[in-house]
Amino acid sequence: MTDSTSTSTAPIRVTVWGENRHEQINPVVRGIYPEGMHTTIADGIRGLLGDEATVTTRVLDDPEHGMTEETLAATDVLLWWGHTAHEEVTDEVVERIQRHVLEGMGIIVLHSGHHSKIFRRLMGTTCSLRWRNDGSDRELVWTVSPRHPIAEGVPQPLVIPGQEMYGEFFDIPDPDELIFLSTFTGGEVFRSGITYRRGYGRVFYFSPGDEVYPVYHNPGVQRVIANGVRWARPTRERESYLVTPMYLPGEFDRPVLTDENGGLIDYYTREPVAVRGEGAAS
Amino acid sequence: MTDSTSTSTAPIRVTVWGENRHEQINPVVRGIYPEGMHTTIADGIRGLLGDEATVTTRVLDDPEHGMTEETLAATDVLLWWGHTAHEEVTDEVVERIQRHVLEGMGIIVLHSGHHSKIFRRLMGTTCSLRWRNDGSDRELVWTVSPRHPIAEGVPQPLVIPGQEMYGEFFDIPDPDELIFLSTFTGGEVFRSGITYRRGYGRVFYFSPGDEVYPVYHNPGVQRVIANGVRWARPTRERESYLVTPMYLPGEFDRPVLTDENGGLIDYYTREPVAVRGEGAAS
Amino acid sequence: MTDSTSTSTAPIRVTVWGENRHEQINPVVRGIYPEGMHTTIADGIRGLLGDEATVTTRVLDDPEHGMTEETLAATDVLLWWGHTAHEEVTDEVVERIQRHVLEGMGIIVLHSGHHSKIFRRLMGTTCSLRWRNDGSDRELVWTVSPRHPIAEGVPQPLVIPGQEMYGEFFDIPDPDELIFLSTFTGGEVFRSGITYRRGYGRVFYFSPGDEVYPVYHNPGVQRVIANGVRWARPTRERESYLVTPMYLPGEFDRPVLTDENGGLIDYYTREPVAVRGEGAAS
Amino acid sequence: MTDSTSTSTAPIRVTVWGENRHEQINPVVRGIYPEGMHTTIADGIRGLLGDEATVTTRVLDDPEHGMTEETLAATDVLLWWGHTAHEEVTDEVVERIQRHVLEGMGIIVLHSGHHSKIFRRLMGTTCSLRWRNDGSDRELVWTVSPRHPIAEGVPQPLVIPGQEMYGEFFDIPDPDELIFLSTFTGGEVFRSGITYRRGYGRVFYFSPGDEVYPVYHNPGVQRVIANGVRWARPTRERESYLVTPMYLPGEFDRPVLTDENGGLIDYYTREPVAVRGEGAAS
Repeated sequence: MTDSTSTSTAPIRVTVWGENRHEQINPVVRGIYPEGMHTTIADGIRGLLGDEATVTTRVLDDPEHGMTEETLAATDVLLWWGHTAHEEVTDEVVERIQRHVLEGMGIIVLHSGHHSKIFRRLMGTTCSLRWRNDGSDRELVWTVSPRHPIAEGVPQPLVIPGQEMYGEFFDIPDPDELIFLSTFTGGEVFRSGITYRRGYGRVFYFSPGDEVYPVYHNPGVQRVIANGVRWARPTRERESYLVTPMYLPGEFDRPVLTDENGGLIDYYTREPVAVRGEGAAS
Repeated sequence: MTDSTSTSTAPIRVTVWGENRHEQINPVVRGIYPEGMHTTIADGIRGLLGDEATVTTRVLDDPEHGMTEETLAATDVLLWWGHTAHEEVTDEVVERIQRHVLEGMGIIVLHSGHHSKIFRRLMGTTCSLRWRNDGSDRELVWTVSPRHPIAEGVPQPLVIPGQEMYGEFFDIPDPDELIFLSTFTGGEVFRSGITYRRGYGRVFYFSPGDEVYPVYHNPGVQRVIANGVRWARPTRERESYLVTPMYLPGEFDRPVLTDENGGLIDYYTREPVAVRGEGAAS
Repeated sequence: MTDSTSTSTAPIRVTVWGENRHEQINPVVRGIYPEGMHTTIADGIRGLLGDEATVTTRVLDDPEHGMTEETLAATDVLLWWGHTAHEEVTDEVVERIQRHVLEGMGIIVLHSGHHSKIFRRLMGTTCSLRWRNDGSDRELVWTVSPRHPIAEGVPQPLVIPGQEMYGEFFDIPDPDELIFLSTFTGGEVFRSGITYRRGYGRVFYFSPGDEVYPVYHNPGVQRVIANGVRWARPTRERESYLVTPMYLPGEFDRPVLTDENGGLIDYYTREPVAVRGEGAAS
Repeated sequence: MTDSTSTSTAPIRVTVWGENRHEQINPVVRGIYPEGMHTTIADGIRGLLGDEATVTTRVLDDPEHGMTEETLAATDVLLWWGHTAHEEVTDEVVERIQRHVLEGMGIIVLHSGHHSKIFRRLMGTTCSLRWRNDGSDRELVWTVSPRHPIAEGVPQPLVIPGQEMYGEFFDIPDPDELIFLSTFTGGEVFRSGITYRRGYGRVFYFSPGDEVYPVYHNPGVQRVIANGVRWARPTRERESYLVTPMYLPGEFDRPVLTDENGGLIDYYTREPVAVRGEGAAS
C-alpha cells in the first residue's frame, strides 16, 4: 500500500496582487501591460502550470485591497507587486496577510515589493537597497543553487535586456536559501532570488520586474515565477500557532489551558481534563 | 604602524530594561529579586565585565518606558525582560527600539521576552512555543557551538536546578547561529540560545529566566549574558539605511537624489551635483 | 499547455547499504533483524512508498562492497548503515560514492554511519559525539521544522522506547536545515535530523538506529526514512562538475578549453571553436 | 573585578604558505612579486597588524612543504595560496593541516586555493567554478555583510583593476556567512568572501589574487586579509575531538572508556573510575 500524503493533486490556488497604479498614469507602462502587470504575471503562470494551478488577480483599489479573509483563506500562494502606493495598504490588511503566511500560505514578493509593508513586516528590517533606473542596465540573473526547484529550467545566466539596477547592500536577514545573484551593466550585484520560512509559510523574493521594461513577458522570468509558485505551495492545512499551549509532564500531545479558577481545561475542547494516570490513582 | 579600528577600548554602554511588575505583586519574586530582576541582571554584568561596561537600568513605568531617543542613542547593548505587560509597551517605543537595532544597537532578549512586541517585530513570526511551569523541571543548557564567544566559559551542560519548561516547536526564523539547546526533566527540548543579525544590529535570544526561580543569580547564566553583551556590542557608529540611495553608473560611492525638477542633488549635502567627467566634457 | 519538468513519475531507485556484521555475531541483533538490518530498512520503505520506489540492498561483503559504478549509476537514493567496520570500506569505493553524490545522487546516512568514511568525507569534520548505551535511555525525537517534507506525518514527539544516547557536542558543519532534535532520559540532546547539499546531491543524516533495539521496526522511524527518500531524490540527470570550464566574454553558455597549442576548443565536442562575431569580422 | 578570558593580548602567530612556483618560471609574476607572493602577503599583514601579529612564511619546496607538526602547532592562522602544484602536496600533510583546523587553527584560503586538497577536504565538494583570464576583467568586490569584522574598513566596492574572472556556479557548501560578492567586466558574479566553521577552527575563503596581477599589493585586499587574520584567530587552546567519549547517566562532565575487561576507566587519566554515589552506597 502506498502512502501519498505529500503528493497532492488539487490545483494550486494562486492570487496575483497588483498595485495597478503605474498602468493608469504612465503610457509607457500601459503600452507594455495593457491589462495591468498583474494580468501578465497571471497569464505567465497559467501558460506554464496549466491545470496545475487556478489563478486569479486582485488590485489595490479593490475593497479591502482585494485581500479579504475569504480570499486569503482560499489562496495557496499570493504574489505581490507594489511600488508607488505601499503606504496606502492598511495595517489591518497587512496583519491579515502576515497571519495567513504564518499559518501556511506561500507568498512571492516581486521587485519593488521589497519595500512593501508586508515584506518588511516579515523580514523585520528596512529592506533598503541601492538603485538606478536610467535605461543603461542589462540584468544577468545567475543561479548559485542549480538543483533548487525554483532554478529548474532557468538559463545560466537568464538575460534581461533592460532593467532597473538594484544593488547591495540589500538590508535583509540572511536568507535561508540564496538561489539567484544578479549583475548589472554598471558592475553592481544583488541577491535577486532568496527564500525564507516564516511560521508555516514559505516566502520567495525575486527582484526583476521594473514597470517600464517588459520583464514579465520574458519567458525565463515567467519560468522562475511558475517554479516559485510550485515551491511555495503549502503541503498541509493552514494552522494557527498564536496561542502558546501548556503541556503537563509526559502529556506531549495534549495541550491544556487553565480556567478562571486555575483548573485545567483541554486546549481544543475547552472541557475540564483529568491528568493521565490520576483516575487510576484516586 | 598598527591599525586598530576594531579594538575599541571605550566601555560598553549597557541598558537593562525590566518590566518590573511581578516583583511588585508576587512575594516569591520579590523575595528572589528584592531590587527587581533588572537590578540583579545589571549586577551580574557589572561583576563580570567590570570597567569594560557601564550599566544602567530602565523599567516599564518610567516615562516613555525609559526608552527615550536619548537613552537609546547612548546605549550599545539593550537587554529586555518582559512578560505580563507586553501589550502596555507603546508601538511608538517599539518602532524606536527597532530603528536603533537596525542602525547598529545590540539587543539581548531574555526568557518571556520571546513574546514581546520588539522581538516579534524583529522576527516577523509569532514566536510562540510550548511551556509548563509546575516546579517539576530542571533545565540543562547544552552548547552546540563550542567556540562561539557567547559560549566561552560556560559549563557543558549548564545546570539550572529549577526552571519553567519552554519547548519546541518554537516559531522563529531559522537562527543565523544556534549556540545553546536546552532539555527539561519532562523530556522536552528548546533552542535556548540563538543569534540573528537585523540591519546593522546584533540580536541574541537566551531563554532561561522565569521569575519564580533564582535564575539570574546563577553564575553560568550570568556568564552567558556577559558574553552576550560583549558579542552584541556595535563596532561602528550607528548608521541609518531608511532611504534607498540612487547611484549613477560608475559613481559607486556617491549616492544622489532627485529634486522636484528632476535635477540630481547630493544624498548627503543636498547640493546639486555634477556627474564625474561631465565637467571636463563641457 | 502544461510544463511538467519537476514532477517525475518514474519510481525512485533506492539502494539500502548495510554493514551486516552485528547480525552475524550478535544473537540479540539477529533476533531483531533475522534478515539483516538492511532488509528491514528496505521493507519499511517498500511498505510506505509502494510503487513509488524500487528498493534493493547491498552489504559490505559484496564484491566492491556492492558499490560498483553500475549500481551507483542506477541509484537515485543510497541509504548507509555502518558501525563496526568503517575502516574496511576501501577509499576507492568511498571516492566513487562521493563523486556520485556530488553529481546528484541522494544519500541518507543512518545512526553510527556518522563515523563512516563517506559521511566524514562529505562533512570535512570528525563527526564525533558523546554517547551511552546501557539500556537506560528513551529517545524523544522533536520536530523543529514542522512543514519540512521529511517531518510530514511524524508524531510530535516521536517516541523511541529504547535507544543508545547520542549527545552534543556533535562535530558537524552547521546544517543547511535542522529538522529534528532528540532528547534522552539522561537529559542529553542531539541534532538528530539534519540536511546538507553537497554538489548536486542531497544529504540527510538521521541518528536513531542502534542495532540492539528494534528501531527500524518503529513506524515513526520508517515514516521519517521514507520521507527522506522522497526528499533526497534527484530531479535531474547526474552531471559532473570536476573540470572547471573557461568562458570567453559574453559566451555565457559555451565553455571552452585550450589545446596544447593554446588554441580554443569546445568543452563538450573538443572541436576548435570560432568566437562569436569573429566570423563576420574576418 | 574584570573577567578577561576573551581578550587575549598575545600576538597572533600567522604562517603564510605560498606555492612559489609561478614566481620561478614566469617573469611577469616575478616582476610583480620579486620575493614571492607569500612575502608580499606576509608584508601586508605586518603592515596593518604590526605588533598584533608575528608573521612567518613557508613554501611548497620546504621539507614536508614547511607544514611540520611543530610549525602547525605554533600557528594560530594559516594562509594558503596554491595553484599549479596542488597534487604535489602529500596527503599526509593535508591530513595534518585538516586535523589542526578541526582542533582550532584558523585557515584563510586564497584565490586558486579553491582547488587545493586542503580546501576540498574541508568542504567535501569539487569547489569547481567558471573562469576567464584574458586581461579583459576588472573585479568589483561588494560587501553584503557590512558589519562583519572582515568587512571593516573595506571600500564599497573594493575595485581591483585587473583580475582573473571567477564565476558561478561555485561548487561549495552553502557558506555559514556570505561577506563579499564580486562582479566582473564580462557580467559574471562570484561568492568571493565566505566563511565556514569546521570543528573548532574557522575557515575564510577570499577569491581575489591571480598571480599575473598585483592584487596582493592592493591596500583594500590587504585590509581584507588582515581583518581575516583577526577573525580566524582561535580564542582557546587547541583541542582534539577525534575519540568519541562515553558518559554515564548524570556524569555530564566525566567521560569514560572501557578497558579490555569491560571495566570503566577515566577518559583523561586512564585510571579505573567509581561511579558517583556508588562509594556512599557500598
